[in-house]
Parts: sequence; C-alpha cells; structure tokens
Amino acid sequence: MKRHTLSDRHCALARAGAELVDGWTFVILREVMLFNRKFSGIQEQTGMNPISLTKRLQSLIDVEILETQEYSEKSSRVEYCLTEKGEDLWPALIMLKTWADRWSDDWSVDDPPLKFSHGDDDHLFSAVLACGDCGESVYPTDVRAELSEAMVNDRLYMKQSNKR
Amino acid sequence: MKRHTLSDRHCALARAGAELVDGWTFVILREVMLFNRKFSGIQEQTGMNPISLTKRLQSLIDVEILETQEYSEKSSRVEYCLTEKGEDLWPALIMLKTWADRWSDDWSVDDPPLKFSHGDDDHLFSAVLACGDCGESVYPTDVRAELSEAMVNDRLYMKQSNKR
Repeated sequence: MKRHTLSDRHCALARAGAELVDGWTFVILREVMLFNRKFSGIQEQTGMNPISLTKRLQSLIDVEILETQEYSEKSSRVEYCLTEKGEDLWPALIMLKTWADRWSDDWSVDDPPLKFSHGDDDHLFSAVLACGDCGESVYPTDVRAELSEAMVNDRLYMKQSNKR
Repeated sequence: MKRHTLSDRHCALARAGAELVDGWTFVILREVMLFNRKFSGIQEQTGMNPISLTKRLQSLIDVEILETQEYSEKSSRVEYCLTEKGEDLWPALIMLKTWADRWSDDWSVDDPPLKFSHGDDDHLFSAVLACGDCGESVYPTDVRAELSEAMVNDRLYMKQSNKR
C-alpha cells in the first residue's frame, strides 16, 4: 500500500499541510483575523469564486480551524470565526508573513502592507522565534533534532513501500 | 479585471501562499532540512509521483527557495539545497509544526514525531513567537495592526472589482 496523502503521515508538517490545503486558506484566515467574517465580505476580499470558497470554508470547519456563529436570529445568517485551534495559528501565520515581507521585491521590510506595533511605547513589532523555556532567540543551528521511534518507523515504511 | 491569483496581491500572506503552493511543499522542505536532498530520496520519503515532484521542485527553484548543486562531477547529478530565502523559512515551518503538534490527536505535545533540544543543558525547545525589539513573548492581543495605504487601496480595489 502506498500512501499519497499527507493527513496520515507521522509528521506535524504533513498534517499542517493537509489541513491548510493551500495559499487560499492563508488569505481566508487573514480576513477572519481582520474581523471580516461574513461570506460576502470574505469572498469580496479574497476574490475566490463562491463554490471554491464554500468548499474551503467547510474544510476549515471540518478540521476545526473555523466555526460558524449566527449573527442574526431572524435570518440565521452566520459569521466564520476562529476556534481556539484556529486562533493558535496566529504565530505561524505571522512568521510566514514576516518571511514574505523580508523577501518581497515589491515593498521594503520596514514598510510592509501590514505592520504591528507592540508595547506601551508602540514600537514596531518584528517577529522572531524564541525558546519558550529559556526565552532566547533561536536559529536553526541552535537546536538539535531528535526523531521519535514512530517517525523513524514511518520513514522506514516510506522507503520500503516506495521501493516495491 | 478580476484578480484570482495570489501572487499579485499586496499582502505578504497571499504571496507566501502563492510561493508555497500547498502542503506538499512543506514535506519537501522538511526533507531538504533533514539533509535528504537527492531526487530519489525526496521522492521516497514524500511518496510523491516523479512528475509532480519534478514540477514542484522546479517551482521552488523558480521562486528562489531551492537551488540545485552538483554533487558528482562525473554524472552531473544534483542535490536540492535551500537558498538563503529557503533557510529563512525555518521559523515559519517550526511554528506550523508546533501548532500541528499541539492539536494532533495522534501524539502528545510532549512526545512529538520530531523534537528539538536547545542550549548547553539540552532542554526541550518549545517554539514561541517573540518581539525582536523588546524580546517579550507576543500574543495576538498584544499588538495593534496598521494597514499601509497600498494595502488599503488593494482592499478597496478588491471590493469594487468584485461588485461589478
């Protein structure tokens, strides 16, 4: 049996990839995070066709990143809101945004389309990855990776099944 | 004119979404970061069919996330390596991994498929988002968003063009 889907891999990035699907998810989540939460508003700002948007919103509800909340009792109209799991995507999306700002040819990193101010003195927020244990900024060479037995077995399985 | 692609939006997340395409990119980059950099090895561990993998590797080269390096002069065989821009994706991928670990039903956050140790005392690395200016950990409610004029205009344009 070969496995060609991402959702059953013993790897967090594969699972994230399966749930987030593609870049359209990023812009839908951007809208929801900017409090633009009605179908028509999200459709307007993403430019997605209504069928694709309907499907994608449903898949985000299925994986519990979004949930619907009624905003009008009369018409049972709904807004798309972040679940706790969806809100927890914020740091990852901010890191992606920061990366794309840094490498954009169309704007400078000091003057991005969206910036954030932080703290009582409103300083410019620049996102960095830090260690929750010791608080230090962390770069790839600062950490040592350790694969779990399950991930090692998964990699061995992929190796064997793709050799058949 | 309606714009239905992500690559021309005045938004970093849309650009990131356009360049990363979908979750298969995450697992390709995982392999390259784990130093599995030959076509056959990446194919084996991702389970992608060779045509899809060839296309995806080329699109990652086109957006300057990957580059090829010859590893054998005799056969001109190449490895797929991260560019500086590709290496710079590491914090975002670590944040995505951390999120997926936190919300996985298949493993606990203390025993993920891949863990990292950090510092001289080898403590468990847990990724948090921090402010590069003041060093504090940052949560969504700690920052205030400010849209640039260009992004405001882009949103106005999307609103108008989708109303036509």
